[in-house]
Amino acid sequence: MAKTVKVAVEEQITSSNDQIAAANRAKLAEAGVFSINLMASPGGGKTSLILRTVKALKGEMRLAAVDGDVVMVDVEKIAAQGIPVELVNTGGDCHLQAHMIANVLPKFDLESIDMLIIENVGNLICPAAWNLGADKKVVIASVPEGDDKPYKYPAMFRGADVLLLNKIDYLAVQDFDVEYFKRGVEALNNDVAFFPVSCRTGEGLDAWFDWVRGQVQRKKA
Amino acid sequence: MAKTVKVAVEEQITSSNDQIAAANRAKLAEAGVFSINLMASPGGGKTSLILRTVKALKGEMRLAAVDGDVVMVDVEKIAAQGIPVELVNTGGDCHLQAHMIANVLPKFDLESIDMLIIENVGNLICPAAWNLGADKKVVIASVPEGDDKPYKYPAMFRGADVLLLNKIDYLAVQDFDVEYFKRGVEALNNDVAFFPVSCRTGEGLDAWFDWVRGQVQRKKA
Repeated sequence: MAKTVKVAVEEQITSSNDQIAAANRAKLAEAGVFSINLMASPGGGKTSLILRTVKALKGEMRLAAVDGDVVMVDVEKIAAQGIPVELVNTGGDCHLQAHMIANVLPKFDLESIDMLIIENVGNLICPAAWNLGADKKVVIASVPEGDDKPYKYPAMFRGADVLLLNKIDYLAVQDFDVEYFKRGVEALNNDVAFFPVSCRTGEGLDAWFDWVRGQVQRKKA
Repeated sequence: MAKTVKVAVEEQITSSNDQIAAANRAKLAEAGVFSINLMASPGGGKTSLILRTVKALKGEMRLAAVDGDVVMVDVEKIAAQGIPVELVNTGGDCHLQAHMIANVLPKFDLESIDMLIIENVGNLICPAAWNLGADKKVVIASVPEGDDKPYKYPAMFRGADVLLLNKIDYLAVQDFDVEYFKRGVEALNNDVAFFPVSCRTGEGLDAWFDWVRGQVQRKKA
């Protein structure tokens, strides 16, 4: 009974969320901003990927970030790179919603941004169900989490446009069958761009940077 | 507006959840079963800890497990150890709820179980808000997730009765400040039993096994 009530209300909210997401998307498109919704487990490497990406690309494009979190620590790390960044304090909520992005967008000068990175809450389940209006959903999995994650968190992997397998430097010290992992992903999603990387060593990140460059150029064209 | 509706309904459901959790607790207590609600991020080591615990203790106590998941793979691994185990198929839900446990308890012969291990969904946020009726909340954090997790996921660490820091063998290959991690935990929770372990190497697990033995004996006394 309680369960039924919950589902009905969530469907209603998700539908309203999709309308706000569409408005976010239109607003970002009008300003020519390429945007990503970055999702991962806690500790998967979202902030590390953002820091690596900003360091590599801030000389050639104008970046900005939104961080869905309960503390300022990641915001400060990203701001130290000299790009605009805003905290969306989720107050412990398990995912970002489109209205949170709608509320934060006016704090940015969108006309002077080429790429907006939205760092979602560390969670491999809930964020998958909530459109934010970003152009691409980017999911990070990481080697220490194990090679079975696509099988256990299918919604997240099914919805990804891009999948980064982070911490590949740990492949030397951990049993992780990359082919088993990839088969799990391919069973859900034939259309995902796949980048094995290490945000610690930098390995593999050039291919990710090239993908970002291509997306930003396409948005401007 | 949508947000307000969601909060109101969730409170109502949580209250009903607490009533079912209390009934679960009474049922388990009557049968003398010691139970834990085991929570962690995806890939933190829940199943590994269960397998280690079952292998070490099945000769001296009667164990059983419930696995909240969408696939049978962990259930099969645990069942291979020769203990009763049941899947609660969460269908992609982000946490277990008390009614799911109430529905699965009749499948067990509780009178012939000393300890029931409930493996929650891999998620460091949502499960913290939902009582299942277990005696103790056991949280696993793991070294590759990073030393900042208590600061970012406070509800989970605040509610823990026991905290295992798993994958301590990775301390050799990763920057992880154990004191910073512990300070973050202590700021939230002065009353947590803390066990640094590696489910891969077995290091530190004897102290956890002793804690389990003590709890099971106390329940029988």
